[in-house]
Amino acid sequence: MPTLCRPAVSVPEHVVTMEDTLEFAEKIHHGKPQLPLALRLIQRTGVRKRHIVQPIEEALGHPGFEERNRLYEMESKKRCPPVITEALTNADLTVQDIDVIIYVSCTGFLMPSLTAWLINSMGFRSDTRQIPIAQLGCAAGGAAINRAHDFCMAYPGGNVLIVSCELCSLCYQPEDDDIGSLLSGGLFGDAVAAAVVRGHGGTGVRLERNASYLVPQTEDWISYAVRATGFHFRLDRRVPGTMKPLAPVLRELAADHGWDAGNLDFYIIHAGGPRILDDLAEYLNVDRTMFRHSWATLTECGNIASAVVLEALRRQFEENAIPPGATGMIAGFGPGITAEMSAGRWALDSRDPSSRPTARSQGFLEPGRVARQQVV
Amino acid sequence: MPTLCRPAVSVPEHVVTMEDTLEFAEKIHHGKPQLPLALRLIQRTGVRKRHIVQPIEEALGHPGFEERNRLYEMESKKRCPPVITEALTNADLTVQDIDVIIYVSCTGFLMPSLTAWLINSMGFRSDTRQIPIAQLGCAAGGAAINRAHDFCMAYPGGNVLIVSCELCSLCYQPEDDDIGSLLSGGLFGDAVAAAVVRGHGGTGVRLERNASYLVPQTEDWISYAVRATGFHFRLDRRVPGTMKPLAPVLRELAADHGWDAGNLDFYIIHAGGPRILDDLAEYLNVDRTMFRHSWATLTECGNIASAVVLEALRRQFEENAIPPGATGMIAGFGPGITAEMSAGRWALDSRDPSSRPTARSQGFLEPGRVARQQVV
Repeated sequence: MPTLCRPAVSVPEHVVTMEDTLEFAEKIHHGKPQLPLALRLIQRTGVRKRHIVQPIEEALGHPGFEERNRLYEMESKKRCPPVITEALTNADLTVQDIDVIIYVSCTGFLMPSLTAWLINSMGFRSDTRQIPIAQLGCAAGGAAINRAHDFCMAYPGGNVLIVSCELCSLCYQPEDDDIGSLLSGGLFGDAVAAAVVRGHGGTGVRLERNASYLVPQTEDWISYAVRATGFHFRLDRRVPGTMKPLAPVLRELAADHGWDAGNLDFYIIHAGGPRILDDLAEYLNVDRTMFRHSWATLTECGNIASAVVLEALRRQFEENAIPPGATGMIAGFGPGITAEMSAGRWALDSRDPSSRPTARSQGFLEPGRVARQQVV
Repeated sequence: MPTLCRPAVSVPEHVVTMEDTLEFAEKIHHGKPQLPLALRLIQRTGVRKRHIVQPIEEALGHPGFEERNRLYEMESKKRCPPVITEALTNADLTVQDIDVIIYVSCTGFLMPSLTAWLINSMGFRSDTRQIPIAQLGCAAGGAAINRAHDFCMAYPGGNVLIVSCELCSLCYQPEDDDIGSLLSGGLFGDAVAAAVVRGHGGTGVRLERNASYLVPQTEDWISYAVRATGFHFRLDRRVPGTMKPLAPVLRELAADHGWDAGNLDFYIIHAGGPRILDDLAEYLNVDRTMFRHSWATLTECGNIASAVVLEALRRQFEENAIPPGATGMIAGFGPGITAEMSAGRWALDSRDPSSRPTARSQGFLEPGRVARQQVV
């Protein structure tokens, strides 16, 4: 059974606190009618800090689409390899063991995809398959996990490397002052994440079932306007309300698996924004603390697009409180409106003594009771 | 076993002959030193005509990246649905039978991908998986077939719709006069293609094995420079020589399958340009006429990027000369340099009497002898 192993995540060195964001918003929108709204939106994100690839003064300028894409190329080549190396170590594999690289990123566009450079520069096999996905946005983290799962079902024993490189700050558009842009200016952060799905063995989430869903007639709700200045993020006011149609879909996935979506042991949920997490907890009737790793990701990094689910899962590993057999769900949401969801159980690699749960969390706990005992 | 069914292909209504291309090149490069080279490159493409979405006078202008992407969106929404409908009919399936849409296109960028609009507007199921791939360029046709094959191995009985929408004329850059641009100005054409991979049943290529390969250290040979004016196609002089490293890879795939790559019944090869086809025939030691469907595609449509393999396969179906059990190979090549290859046998859907071979081609012919009898 394919197992999603411990992710590696890195965030850049330039930190932007909420106070910084508010201060810069005061300057940028000074004397303009949108200022109070901008400040309110930023405060409501719940994002305490974010990490970006450049000092904020530079990130707020616009050096042109070409230069931004050049920065994307340079930064992704600098930041992806160490994260990939760590993810491979976490999975106890080497570059030569990888059969597919799924590279997801919606914040820069390279052809060929970075996959070609990674194969050449890191020593992956020449027959490594490349699946670059740019157009699923924040849902691409969940999509990558699901396509990796599918691949391992087709080729039992195959290994898939997932890389998510989201340098959202390179898509900031200083001229845009619609409500979606004001919000996203305070919400998104940069991060690079990687994880391996092992076909055999491995400690982590044993992927058992996955599903995709497109909320009908919402394709305009999250989109890019493609212009000479690059990608302009467009966010409809109705997006924060999308958990209403999506919660039943998550329930159905769990039910198809014989589970109750409201009574699982762990949840790795895309932290699109605070309302997404609040609403989904309410609709699924789970305690807010069950989404603590998503909340922590949002608070500490902002919405890091397709990397959110990997960062939340990394925190789940770090907590080290999940016993084998615990049931869980992973869900990414993004443009479409697309949901990419999976259900699986926590599994330990029997050959790996270091992966056994610590004393603190040993023993099998009743489903639905495992992680609720933890404090956020 | 997954079967790649009869593709549907449409080419736009605006025809550009080689004479037109030469005439416009004379005007565009009039009095400039690159003129003789441009004319020579165009003549050598072997492209007799191409089809593009706008009158050539409009295609030669540059209305800006934003307007081009708007045109891409409008034209793809107009041109994809009828082709998809025909491909579904060819596979004897409906929109409701499709589990995945793999949408490949490197000539426009939409987020969300066109997949979301297709699902909403054509009535595909809301749980249809979306795999949009933009960054594999011309290799994406082969990649789509291979990922569809993999999906059907993971979910036996699943059905995958492949859509290739390549509006190459929307990437023409009037200011570029490097050798790659001069060549591509005479080489590329527009087309929309679609085909279904059926998990069970269906007449066409039964997909049995696939492989990917990245030619080491060639990632700069085919690329896009991303600028405010859009995607600028960059082609290295060494690209036409890539069959030398790739022919052995095709041989190996066939050998892994117990076959001799030089002695198959049909070949569906990406028509990147005349030298690709000439060299590969030589290296594999097959008669030039074995690639006649690729040659015809190149001559009649130009290089239509990821759609080439589907158009060449459509011609193979149209020829109606392949008996069941005939052995063949499909290969797409593109940036990376990436090759996406597959091996399979011609299969007839036992339930479909119309799909039986005609009298002309009935009876099982000796492998390697089937199609050589045809005249190009």
